[in-house]
Amino acid sequence: MGDPAGIGPEIVVKALMNPKVRKASNPLVFGSFEVIKRAALSFAKKAKVKKVETFYNLEDLPGIINVLNCTDLDYKKIKPGKFSVASGKMAAESLICATLNAIFKKIDGIVTAPLTKKGLFLAGYNFKGHTDFLAEISYTKKYAMVFVTPKLKLVLVTTHIPLSQVSKKLTKEKIEEKIVLADELLRKVFKIKNPKIGVCALNPHAGEDGLLGEEDKKIVLPAIKKAQTKKIKAFGPYPADSIFSPSVSKNFDCIVAMYHDQGLIPLKTKGIGNAVNLTWGLPFVRTSPDHGTAFDIAGKGIADPKGMINAILLASKLAKEKIGFQDEFIKNQ
Amino acid sequence: MGDPAGIGPEIVVKALMNPKVRKASNPLVFGSFEVIKRAALSFAKKAKVKKVETFYNLEDLPGIINVLNCTDLDYKKIKPGKFSVASGKMAAESLICATLNAIFKKIDGIVTAPLTKKGLFLAGYNFKGHTDFLAEISYTKKYAMVFVTPKLKLVLVTTHIPLSQVSKKLTKEKIEEKIVLADELLRKVFKIKNPKIGVCALNPHAGEDGLLGEEDKKIVLPAIKKAQTKKIKAFGPYPADSIFSPSVSKNFDCIVAMYHDQGLIPLKTKGIGNAVNLTWGLPFVRTSPDHGTAFDIAGKGIADPKGMINAILLASKLAKEKIGFQDEFIKNQ
Repeated sequence: MGDPAGIGPEIVVKALMNPKVRKASNPLVFGSFEVIKRAALSFAKKAKVKKVETFYNLEDLPGIINVLNCTDLDYKKIKPGKFSVASGKMAAESLICATLNAIFKKIDGIVTAPLTKKGLFLAGYNFKGHTDFLAEISYTKKYAMVFVTPKLKLVLVTTHIPLSQVSKKLTKEKIEEKIVLADELLRKVFKIKNPKIGVCALNPHAGEDGLLGEEDKKIVLPAIKKAQTKKIKAFGPYPADSIFSPSVSKNFDCIVAMYHDQGLIPLKTKGIGNAVNLTWGLPFVRTSPDHGTAFDIAGKGIADPKGMINAILLASKLAKEKIGFQDEFIKNQ
Repeated sequence: MGDPAGIGPEIVVKALMNPKVRKASNPLVFGSFEVIKRAALSFAKKAKVKKVETFYNLEDLPGIINVLNCTDLDYKKIKPGKFSVASGKMAAESLICATLNAIFKKIDGIVTAPLTKKGLFLAGYNFKGHTDFLAEISYTKKYAMVFVTPKLKLVLVTTHIPLSQVSKKLTKEKIEEKIVLADELLRKVFKIKNPKIGVCALNPHAGEDGLLGEEDKKIVLPAIKKAQTKKIKAFGPYPADSIFSPSVSKNFDCIVAMYHDQGLIPLKTKGIGNAVNLTWGLPFVRTSPDHGTAFDIAGKGIADPKGMINAILLASKLAKEKIGFQDEFIKNQ
């Protein structure tokens, strides 16, 4: 469900009325039954919202939105567009409930609607976001935040940290780990035989041989060389302002970016709602739309469910093919 | 001329054979006569390259490329695509010669072909690039690196510094100064009456209220508020991965970015060669193409002069209208 004060409930009910989604999956909403019912009354008037008690009485028919109620908090406390302890708690409780069910294989995967770090924080959970939370709760050490578009895959080395911390957090090992994960993802999920991976430089002009920063020579390049010894086709480091231009990015199946905005700026410049966020390395399937809670338009009925629909379709595809995740789970135990 | 081992000489001779360029300006190349002659022999076969002794015998006819020889270094030492002390020195000598002529109003403006910090450094000049060099040599304290595209103008707060230094170098005053310069630029050069300026956040998700970094709350936002007290329509800070998406950026005449790649990634993602780099605040007109020396394709004849042509056309427009620069010069003395 995501944060109930954001656009989560709206895009969830809209997406679950989409015929492609219903054909591809048997969806079950983890969240507040009352919040989802309220959202359906406004944004999916033809839907029938059903409270699910156990997984065995799922009536999976188009038009029926099944909800597993994960929270006893009062839905009346939730005001669209307003941060509150209650909305942060609902988001966290829904996420925990869904994650445990995924870990214990009761469901085939999770698609998360957006929440905010601030909401989680207000509710007493100090996680940097979904990805870190899911990794921690499933004891996953090596994982990558991935964004998938029809044309390009993007992997981030660092994610939700202040810009001033990026250089300090980058290590040769961390960068190499993400390149290896990217290679594995491209082979297993996207069936690319010899994937080509382009790696961004940290500094402007790739550091200009050290004049604009040493990290590209001393950390990024050695990580690429190490990955190459494992027969991975990794290239770079490339100046980040050239690698994303279409004439350069077309040479790669995936680009590895050093920090959040370095990868997300070019991705979103091409149009919000087209990328799906995928966590690779978890013992279960997990995707999400690439946008945020959009508090400014919450409750107005104008949220576009396209990102959520794409996220559900990708998760369904991965879950059906049971790609990699079982192995990963065993490996992690 | 830029660095003679890069694509500078090639794009200069190609651009000077362009009829629009010759109609808009009376171009004079500051560089090595022999290097330009060699470039014309390969890339502009119909051109006649003339060595100019004084400004009073300029034979400004289409097909004639006038060169003021600024260097006695041997052109045979210059190998396309290879860094050398000689190429760095030639680039620096040409730039100094052109700049002094601009400062003393012998020419109406400068269009610079690309050079490299490494080349300058090898030649004994420790500047971060054209912009800082030009500001220093003309005693200019307040200036801004601007990129101009048909749809959007971009101003950078910090420019050619390592990413790890960005947070340390940002101050409220510096950000406000660039917002004020952006406002002035939009009014004077682009004749926009009430320009709207969007300001990027430094941290991912604009810092999420401090959870992902304090600078957006403590430095960027106060700078925007200060600018607003001067009746400047500045807005933000916006998450950098949303402000450049077309649906958001269309609301602004100019975007102010906190660091090099934050602004240049989205600009170049939309296609290299379309933006013109403009230094605003100098006592003379200065533009350049937004690409680099492209050593990898130097000497091959495949360099596209489009960026250089656009840069000359914008410089000509500014010089003809004598926008702002005379005032600036007086103000700076």
